[in-house]
Parts: sequence; C-alpha cells; structure tokens
Amino acid sequence: MSTTNDLLLRTARGEQVERPPVWLMRQAGRILPQYRALRNRLSGFKELVETPDLAAEVTIQPVDELGVDAAIIFSDILVIPEAMGLPYEMIEKRGPNFPKVIESAKDVERLSDGEDAAASLHYVYEAVRETKRRLNGRVPLIGFAGAPWTLMAYMVEGSGSKTFSKAKRLLYTDEQLAHQLMQKITNTLIAYLQEKVRSGAQLVQVFDSWAGILSPEQYRRFALPYIGQICEAITEVPVTVFSKGAWFVLDQIGELPCQVVGLDWNTPPALARKWVGEGKVLQGNLDPCQLYALPETIQSATTAMLDAFGRGHIANLGHGVYPDTPLDGVKAFVDTVKAYRYK
Amino acid sequence: MSTTNDLLLRTARGEQVERPPVWLMRQAGRILPQYRALRNRLSGFKELVETPDLAAEVTIQPVDELGVDAAIIFSDILVIPEAMGLPYEMIEKRGPNFPKVIESAKDVERLSDGEDAAASLHYVYEAVRETKRRLNGRVPLIGFAGAPWTLMAYMVEGSGSKTFSKAKRLLYTDEQLAHQLMQKITNTLIAYLQEKVRSGAQLVQVFDSWAGILSPEQYRRFALPYIGQICEAITEVPVTVFSKGAWFVLDQIGELPCQVVGLDWNTPPALARKWVGEGKVLQGNLDPCQLYALPETIQSATTAMLDAFGRGHIANLGHGVYPDTPLDGVKAFVDTVKAYRYK
Repeated sequence: MSTTNDLLLRTARGEQVERPPVWLMRQAGRILPQYRALRNRLSGFKELVETPDLAAEVTIQPVDELGVDAAIIFSDILVIPEAMGLPYEMIEKRGPNFPKVIESAKDVERLSDGEDAAASLHYVYEAVRETKRRLNGRVPLIGFAGAPWTLMAYMVEGSGSKTFSKAKRLLYTDEQLAHQLMQKITNTLIAYLQEKVRSGAQLVQVFDSWAGILSPEQYRRFALPYIGQICEAITEVPVTVFSKGAWFVLDQIGELPCQVVGLDWNTPPALARKWVGEGKVLQGNLDPCQLYALPETIQSATTAMLDAFGRGHIANLGHGVYPDTPLDGVKAFVDTVKAYRYK
Repeated sequence: MSTTNDLLLRTARGEQVERPPVWLMRQAGRILPQYRALRNRLSGFKELVETPDLAAEVTIQPVDELGVDAAIIFSDILVIPEAMGLPYEMIEKRGPNFPKVIESAKDVERLSDGEDAAASLHYVYEAVRETKRRLNGRVPLIGFAGAPWTLMAYMVEGSGSKTFSKAKRLLYTDEQLAHQLMQKITNTLIAYLQEKVRSGAQLVQVFDSWAGILSPEQYRRFALPYIGQICEAITEVPVTVFSKGAWFVLDQIGELPCQVVGLDWNTPPALARKWVGEGKVLQGNLDPCQLYALPETIQSATTAMLDAFGRGHIANLGHGVYPDTPLDGVKAFVDTVKAYRYK
C-alpha cells in the first residue's frame, strides 16, 4: 500500500520537496476536544496506551482535525521499563511513579531485556497495525521510543525530577553498573523498534527528553553510544534523534547514522545546521508557547522559522505541544507551513 | 576595614592572581550539619531568611567549615515579589507558592516598586551588616538577587513549573504588560541591590534561573535589557550575571557592563570564552553531581575544569550544590581549587 501524502518520508530521505512537512510532538492529546472527550470516559492514561483500538483512534484524530503530514502512534516511553520488569503508574497532574526502582546490581540483573522484554508489548504493535489499517495510506505513521539515558533516568529516579540527581549519581559512582543498565535498555529498545517497524511504523523517533541535564562528557560517554547502537540497528526506515537540551553535542549527533535531528526551541537554526552538518534533515523548533499568540503572530513567527531553516527541514515545535494550547493557534501553525513554498 | 582574603575581588577586577577563588552556590544550606541542626530548631525557611542574626550565622558556616573564598548572604530571591506586594509561602519539599499572582494590568499597577518596595527589606540589609561585622574581613561578602525574568516567571506562574508556560504566555500575548511588569521588578531590584551594597555587599550576583526556557528572541527582548539596566546601575562593586541555560545569548551577555559571567555545567569552558569574549571573568561550572563521586575522581575532574578555564576564572559549580551532596565531596572540590596554582 502506498502512502498518498509521503512528504515526510521524501523529506527524511533527503529528496527535493515543495514545502516542509509538518506535525507536532504530542499532537495526539489534550489539545484536541476529541481526545479530551474520549479520555474522560476512561479510567486512566494507561488504559488508552494499552488498548490498540483506542490508541489507534487518538493517533488519527490530529490527522483528521489538523491535517498534519504525519501520525505518531499514541503510546508512552515508559512502556519499556515496564516490559523489563519495572511497572509504573501514571498519577494525574503529577506524572509517572515507579514503586520499585533500580538501586543495586541485583536489580539490574533481574531486569529482562531484548526480544524477551519487547515481546510483552504486543498491544503497541497491534496499535501500530490497527492505525495503519485505518490510516489507509493517508499519511506516514511514526513510531517512537525514549532514549536509553532518559529511560534509565526514570528507572533509577522513580519519577520526574528537576535535577535527576539520583540517576546522575549512579553515573558518577558506579559507571560499570550504569553501562550494564544502559545496554539492557538499549537491547530492549532495538527489539521494540524493530518490531514496531515490522508492524508498519515508517519512521522512528528516539526522544532523549533529559539529555540536557548531563554534562557534555557524560552525554558522550553514557548517552550517545547507545543511541548510536539504535541508529545502526534500525535500517529499514529513517530515524530521528531528538536530544532535548543537548546543544553541546549536536556536532556528534550529526555523525550518528540517523537521518533526522530534532531541535528544541533554544537552538537557532543556522547554528544547528553548522553543528549538525549538511548531511541530515533538521526537525523543529518553534517555541510551544508561541502558539498562545494571535494567529497573525503565529503565522509570521512560523514563516520566519521556515525561512531560517530552509530546505532539509521537518516543521515541528521545539517540544511537545502544551495541553492548554488553543486549537486555533495549532491550526495557524500547521496551515502556515502547508501554505509555504520553497523558493 | 580591609578584607584579608580578597582573592575573589581581585579576580573579579581582572587582576593577576595565583589561583582561582572558590565558593559554591547554595554553600550556606543543607550540605552542612551546622545548617541542618539550626534549621531543625526553626518553624520554617522564611524565619531563617527574615532573622538577621540567624541569616548571618548560616552565611558564615561554610566559611568556617569549608574554607571557601567568599560568603554569600543567606536569603531568597522571592523576597522581591513579596516586597512588591505578592507574599509567598515556602512549602517543605515542594517549593514556593504565591497565593496571589499577576493576571491583569490592574495587578501590575497595584505592585509597589523601586525604593518604596525595597525599603521593606530592612531585615536583608541588617543581615548583610551583621554578617560583615562577624566576618570581620575574613572573606568578601556576596549579595544576590533573582533576575527580572525569573522573578516575573514566579509572579505570573505562582510556583515552580517545568515549562513556565503561564508566564511565557504573557510574553506572547501582552508584550506591553510584560514590559511594565519587568520594569517595575527591575526598579525594585536596582534599589535593593544598591542598598545591599551600601550595607556592605562587595560583589553582587544576579541569578536568572529560568533563562533557559525562553527562546533566543524572547530572551533578547524581555530579559537582557533589564539585566543590562541592573548592571549599569551597580557601579560600586563587580556584578556577576548567571543566566542558567542561556548559552544561546552568551555573546550578548558578554557585551553587558558586568564583570563576571556565570556558567552552567552544560557549557564547555572554551566555547564560553569564545562567546563571552576576553573582557570578562567566567564563573563555574562543575556538574553538581560530580561531587557524588569519590574524592580522587572529584580532584581530577576539578583540575581538568581549572585547566580548561585558565586565568580569569572563579571556581564554582554549574548550579547550586544539591542538598544531599556528601560533605567530603564538597571539601575535595574546595581543597583541589585551593591547592591549584596557575602555571
């Protein structure tokens, strides 16, 4: 089955296109009235993640409502720790919480990994297949995962944190154990993403949400090599690496065997291009708060961003869209990109 | 009265020194057993901030215990919003909370500012005077304040936040009101810092803790000009500007009339020097989590940092020291700097 709107895939492959494709991180979520209506009928966030029929429904909502150029499967990065043996709960307005965390070598040893762990996530693969059936080729479907460091941060810290100092402490006090844990997470991520691709994902994005709290040296030592393993293992579809806040290693991210590099809203496009180099497509990076502005202001800010990136660009925000963003603001952003043409 | 150890001041003035001075952000705090003992006897954090005798005591504790080259007055950046008419409470383990926040033009109008507002902070000036008496010239005393943007972020948001999207929304939706608020905060900060200097502060540091959540354009428009006003108004003592996470404007921070630029632990020293230029002293920037490591590891990491900065440097962490940092780790850091000599 061919994809009717394959702008995202052509762009990611480095082909000449007429305009940048556009989608938003967290586009399937609270910004949409359809999502909120469905979500209010459910017992919790995880029910939505674990029910393929519902996950497929909310994945497609932004394609219908916003006309974006890609769907991204509705899921959660923390399904991976759970598959490895660390279950979590999602607490309303507070975020994730892990009753058990990694504290010792024994804890790491006990984790399952690789295909064994990834096999338990059958509901994700089924959601991908179901979404593909329903999309029927309208737009490409993106699969995603958290990066090894970000997942490790949660698995050691047990919840979100301003500093992730417990997780970082492990890097500074037991390097060997940290590497063992990172490798097990990476093994699982590779099996998981490969199965997602076999189920129909046409591009995969790796989110290193907590990249920016590591020092340059630690990021190079503990985070990048494992992201590199993932990029090397996923060969059938393009890979996007989004290391939020890790401006200081963009030059080395530019050397990874990935096709697309995601950027946060702090990073000026010209500087990103200089650091990443010419060989990759850049994705991002409007400040999500820009969408609180009036539609005319959003339009000019979006156009300025597109001009600054030029070709080889996938339009997006520099972070997931915030849940209280007005739908009109989101539409002004999407519509501006869709009306844009490269000179 | 002359200062016996004036290494910090000589360094900040650009003089040739034998080694970098060293102090730690949040050195007066939970890392010290003396602090924890005193704090446990009190009803709350604000009692400590508002009682000059106690504030002076905890300000001097790290000079006694760690042998650092500077004291920094124990206080809180949020005394400024309170002085302007927005009282706050400090909730144990959760952080600050403002029962009233800025929501409208009327709210901004109602705020007092400048000398009127700053006059109510007599307990801070008294704490500075009392600390100076007790220090008796052993080391210089640093005064500090939050930067206008960071204070505005709390005054609009009402508490800490991962995104400060309420505060940023104001920048995108009512630029004029945002500027009015920033100007009133700045007027108050100038009067406050001038009075702190008259009371005996020998260097002042401006903390823009939430600099990193603004886009480059917004930081240039809303944050930098007001920091510039402060730098211009404080002429009697050196000024340090620490805009955490604002790597993207380090070149423009380098053009401010300040003497010292603070750096977070993400920023490689050589890159910071290139962006800031030769004319300023740099302060920072070891990863606070590095102090969880073994003393030998801390020693080599600290030496590597000092080598990387070279002359024109004040040794510090890249963020406030974390409360659970082992005292031995802190001492390894301080002692390494004190034993270092420029070649």
